[in-house]
Amino acid sequence: MEIPKMMKAVVKVRKERGAVLETLPVPEVGPKEVLVKVRAAAICGTDIHMYQWNAWASQNVERSYSGLPRIMGHEFSGDVVKVGSEVTRVKPGDRVVAETHIPCGDCYICNIGEGFNCQHVKRFKNGVYAEYALIPEMSAIRFPDSLSYEEASVMEPFSVAVHGVSNTSVVGDTVGVIGAGPIGLFTIKLAKAMGASEIFVSDISEYRLELAKKCGAKYVFNPTKCDIVKEVKERTDGLGLGTVFEISGNVKATKQAFECLRKCGTMIMTGLPSEPLILDAGSDIVWKAAKIYGIHGREVYKSWEITKGLLGSGVIEVKSLITHKLDLFTEFDKGFELAESGNAGKVVFLVG
Amino acid sequence: MEIPKMMKAVVKVRKERGAVLETLPVPEVGPKEVLVKVRAAAICGTDIHMYQWNAWASQNVERSYSGLPRIMGHEFSGDVVKVGSEVTRVKPGDRVVAETHIPCGDCYICNIGEGFNCQHVKRFKNGVYAEYALIPEMSAIRFPDSLSYEEASVMEPFSVAVHGVSNTSVVGDTVGVIGAGPIGLFTIKLAKAMGASEIFVSDISEYRLELAKKCGAKYVFNPTKCDIVKEVKERTDGLGLGTVFEISGNVKATKQAFECLRKCGTMIMTGLPSEPLILDAGSDIVWKAAKIYGIHGREVYKSWEITKGLLGSGVIEVKSLITHKLDLFTEFDKGFELAESGNAGKVVFLVG
Amino acid sequence: MEIPKMMKAVVKVRKERGAVLETLPVPEVGPKEVLVKVRAAAICGTDIHMYQWNAWASQNVERSYSGLPRIMGHEFSGDVVKVGSEVTRVKPGDRVVAETHIPCGDCYICNIGEGFNCQHVKRFKNGVYAEYALIPEMSAIRFPDSLSYEEASVMEPFSVAVHGVSNTSVVGDTVGVIGAGPIGLFTIKLAKAMGASEIFVSDISEYRLELAKKCGAKYVFNPTKCDIVKEVKERTDGLGLGTVFEISGNVKATKQAFECLRKCGTMIMTGLPSEPLILDAGSDIVWKAAKIYGIHGREVYKSWEITKGLLGSGVIEVKSLITHKLDLFTEFDKGFELAESGNAGKVVFLVG
Amino acid sequence: MEIPKMMKAVVKVRKERGAVLETLPVPEVGPKEVLVKVRAAAICGTDIHMYQWNAWASQNVERSYSGLPRIMGHEFSGDVVKVGSEVTRVKPGDRVVAETHIPCGDCYICNIGEGFNCQHVKRFKNGVYAEYALIPEMSAIRFPDSLSYEEASVMEPFSVAVHGVSNTSVVGDTVGVIGAGPIGLFTIKLAKAMGASEIFVSDISEYRLELAKKCGAKYVFNPTKCDIVKEVKERTDGLGLGTVFEISGNVKATKQAFECLRKCGTMIMTGLPSEPLILDAGSDIVWKAAKIYGIHGREVYKSWEITKGLLGSGVIEVKSLITHKLDLFTEFDKGFELAESGNAGKVVFLVG
Repeated sequence: MEIPKMMKAVVKVRKERGAVLETLPVPEVGPKEVLVKVRAAAICGTDIHMYQWNAWASQNVERSYSGLPRIMGHEFSGDVVKVGSEVTRVKPGDRVVAETHIPCGDCYICNIGEGFNCQHVKRFKNGVYAEYALIPEMSAIRFPDSLSYEEASVMEPFSVAVHGVSNTSVVGDTVGVIGAGPIGLFTIKLAKAMGASEIFVSDISEYRLELAKKCGAKYVFNPTKCDIVKEVKERTDGLGLGTVFEISGNVKATKQAFECLRKCGTMIMTGLPSEPLILDAGSDIVWKAAKIYGIHGREVYKSWEITKGLLGSGVIEVKSLITHKLDLFTEFDKGFELAESGNAGKVVFLVG
Repeated sequence: MEIPKMMKAVVKVRKERGAVLETLPVPEVGPKEVLVKVRAAAICGTDIHMYQWNAWASQNVERSYSGLPRIMGHEFSGDVVKVGSEVTRVKPGDRVVAETHIPCGDCYICNIGEGFNCQHVKRFKNGVYAEYALIPEMSAIRFPDSLSYEEASVMEPFSVAVHGVSNTSVVGDTVGVIGAGPIGLFTIKLAKAMGASEIFVSDISEYRLELAKKCGAKYVFNPTKCDIVKEVKERTDGLGLGTVFEISGNVKATKQAFECLRKCGTMIMTGLPSEPLILDAGSDIVWKAAKIYGIHGREVYKSWEITKGLLGSGVIEVKSLITHKLDLFTEFDKGFELAESGNAGKVVFLVG
Repeated sequence: MEIPKMMKAVVKVRKERGAVLETLPVPEVGPKEVLVKVRAAAICGTDIHMYQWNAWASQNVERSYSGLPRIMGHEFSGDVVKVGSEVTRVKPGDRVVAETHIPCGDCYICNIGEGFNCQHVKRFKNGVYAEYALIPEMSAIRFPDSLSYEEASVMEPFSVAVHGVSNTSVVGDTVGVIGAGPIGLFTIKLAKAMGASEIFVSDISEYRLELAKKCGAKYVFNPTKCDIVKEVKERTDGLGLGTVFEISGNVKATKQAFECLRKCGTMIMTGLPSEPLILDAGSDIVWKAAKIYGIHGREVYKSWEITKGLLGSGVIEVKSLITHKLDLFTEFDKGFELAESGNAGKVVFLVG
Repeated sequence: MEIPKMMKAVVKVRKERGAVLETLPVPEVGPKEVLVKVRAAAICGTDIHMYQWNAWASQNVERSYSGLPRIMGHEFSGDVVKVGSEVTRVKPGDRVVAETHIPCGDCYICNIGEGFNCQHVKRFKNGVYAEYALIPEMSAIRFPDSLSYEEASVMEPFSVAVHGVSNTSVVGDTVGVIGAGPIGLFTIKLAKAMGASEIFVSDISEYRLELAKKCGAKYVFNPTKCDIVKEVKERTDGLGLGTVFEISGNVKATKQAFECLRKCGTMIMTGLPSEPLILDAGSDIVWKAAKIYGIHGREVYKSWEITKGLLGSGVIEVKSLITHKLDLFTEFDKGFELAESGNAGKVVFLVG
């Protein structure tokens, strides 16, 4: 397959809402880099921030993504079409997805085996909403033959959910999931597949609560319509929940999540609130004997291996959560509007 | 309900094969004891040993069970009909099953929270193959309303399997189960319910291998007909299995189990061989970086709570593994013959 | 040894500052109770609250301690002089200390092996600042022969510190201890004995910071005189601390403790603030990948076994932290003033 | 400092006992390689095998070390004098030691974060008993300023002992160490520094048992002169030991080690026996509820960070275990004879 000189790409150009379709040169491939023909690409929360150009975007894009203009997107799947002279990990023809974080490999945090928390972590220079994406060799991950490109394009956010549940055991026990966006929905599927006895979910979108039920939630609540803490306690003999996954990033919901947690329970915190979190250290943490874990990203590459095992074997199917498939270059605006609305599971763009 | 003076019971009387139906007094209830009307009772491997009066029985019955004659059986469910004057844990009318081990509560092992491994552990004085069973208050465990007596009667062996899988994580990973008797079959169901990607099972009984497939095994092997280590390696890119449960108690199978184990894998040993186990410490343990856990009985009462959560919520169903239901007092010989043959899952006796 | 009818006791009578020396009947011994001749008794933070009759006392004493009047004190050691008819755990002549929490033994939390977090937990009916103390059989714990009564009287708070450090590994790593009261000082000794490379301590009392240095702290800080976060970062290459023990119960100090914590670090929270704790969930927990554990009381009896192992073998000595030994019945007011002042380590009362 | 063209080196040339002093070219430095001026180098068990050219050497040297002739040695410290064009991890002037294992970075085992157990692991091409050593960039580890070259030269074996103790908690508990060679002695020091209450050691060399006592052993036994299992049981109320480190590689000693292990105890296996290990799976593993971990090498680089923390801060001193310091080029034969005799702790060669 001939690689063209130029390619189409969805680019963030200006510090305002929106994105632009542009024609750009296909990137040169360095000795440790891999060029991938993009087949499917998904929308993540940070892509929405960048599309909207909200407060988060203006604070973070310069710092973590080396500024604008920048090709958008990072969740994707595709085919390796060219590799640099020193690349051994993959070869042309391999079907790959990509780890988006690049640890420095030389700091204390990397040395103790927690590279995914590296304090000097970097991200791709280029995004993936384009015909071709350039990624570092270390980021390239082959995916199982049994998965389609669409399914593979959500492995990256799925493995964030895997990382979260890896910190607890839910077998035969009650679970709460606060926030039923894509990572919340993946978490419900995972908790179900790992033996949770009853799953309680809250979200303000009725559309998402419906999806939550299909994923295996036994009880779903809309916190704008009921007192979640009361509802949970009534259904658990007053005990509360064994594990709670806080994925909403809403501080009020987070405080309620602590109140829903059982004594000796485990709280997995993934959501990123923009406001201060106010807790009662005594009742929420100390007397509760709570175990609390801050979780972001993936354990590289352990979360990926578990993801491959679960999706590749069919133990968990994610197709039904890809509620919308659109053409990248003609429908990207529509895709972002859908993702923003809450009336979507995962939105995936198909390419070529 | 009136409690009669006398009751029928299946009793081990003589140090030879078989058991005898007798009429015995219904036991007196001490201040911390509970009398249970037996509704269903299951056959365990140790019951078979005792029925057969093999080498194990002659060595262990005096020591652990205070000798003969003795009412047989320990896995059961029933209704509390009378409680001693100091009993607070249950009341008449409660549906209960029973923990069969009674830790001393005062030794170092009990003090560090491992009472189920107590070095002075005792068992019930009386068995449960009778119209009524007398158990210590601490042994009585209420079970969920959603379970029938038959289902509840297998919670005790099911929770042994729970204890085994509690020592490892199988999510998205490969699992081996060596020996597909009842605990092996429960283990397969558990591994499946906890997200194992592929389950490999071996047993010498084709009947059990069929059951194993129904429980969720992807591959089943009869070690008398193939080289298990080779078969496993071929299906795992030469890696071997992430977790292996050794439940056969056969030393040859155990050695093969170690060879099937992946580097950094986890070996759960529950089977009790009567012959010496011969390992290559270098290749089987040290270079393999193996994690090996000896497992017997249950974590009291943690394994029971997980069991209640899994069976009570319907996450796992065990009905299909109760392949034979017989009348205790007229069919006990038939029941033991079935259990001995290998052509059965779990054999449960119904009472009255 | 004859047991008298009447005994001296230090009693909390009125809802105001202070306590009263009274003569009371020696308690009757129930079938599962143990009467102990008190030899040494220590002052705990809750004793100070009760002596002062502050907000905490007025809120908690009715609820948890069945109201006034009440003999004060709960940390002590002594000799068993009489046991109830059903007691098997100890016998007259045994030297004992006491676990002060009494789990219900029948709730979900007790069943999963976390009885020390039992939601229906009770405490002794009677205090121990008296010639004789009556305790439940399950509370009585024999202590090693090599320990004096004074040393044994601080085993109870020492084992709280043991419980805290049991949740982390400090070997070869940096440690912070926020608050250098008795439990903080024990924590420093423990971290030192468990291989911490460098220990950082903060407290507002210069007296206690001096004691902290003697216990093994490398750096001590007074937060009223410096910016702790800056000092810690400067001495750790900007990384922060691997484990931080928050024992001060001060919300400002707790927030700083989170800022001192390294990425992937462990925060042990034991202090009980009376004000709301305000955190930045993103930077303090999620991006930090923090592990946070709420800790109170002891793992019964595991923390006690570790305490016996450490103090009984002389691996850790606690004598030097008992800075003041006073006569209980003539000097209790002086003892409380010392403990309140911050110019004391552990204050122990000797009895008879 | 000028780097010469030629250097002295101690070389294994022939498949027979001994080694030869040769003059060889100083190696060329590849783009990801580092040239180190060797300052101190220690003798490891595998160096002795190679010097003796025993059965182990003839089986392993071809396979793992790419055959003879080969410069001997791998434990060392020195100064970086030249780095390849792509090296960023270290620079000339850095004082370094070296990790000797080189994981492939691309297999399942590497992916799940256990690279030190990589199934395709390689070792240095060149040894270090020379004036200069060439190592891969990833192997170079800077060591703390507070350590001398001699001390740094034993960090590699020390960190094997660190890896072993990282799998257990010894605080306030009894510990056994079977085999008091260098790694056994480091293990004793570590167990002591991590709060073990009592340490029991066995070895057949009285010289080493004397060193064991100096390291902190409370009881030392020579298995040729007493029944170790009996001695241990007598001193532990019949319980046995909480953790046992099997470092001898002797199968008879290993079987005894299992018998010395307490119920629920942890067995760390590092020794590599050449004969079959015969266990009673029931009493040694299943009924004992044993936890058994196979350990070799280091957790890269976590064990190194802990080692740096412990030795750099002075929490553990290793100088006293370097019982003999010799000149590499004139005394290497004497060094090997000492190390073989058992009448040495660690033997270190000084270079230039």
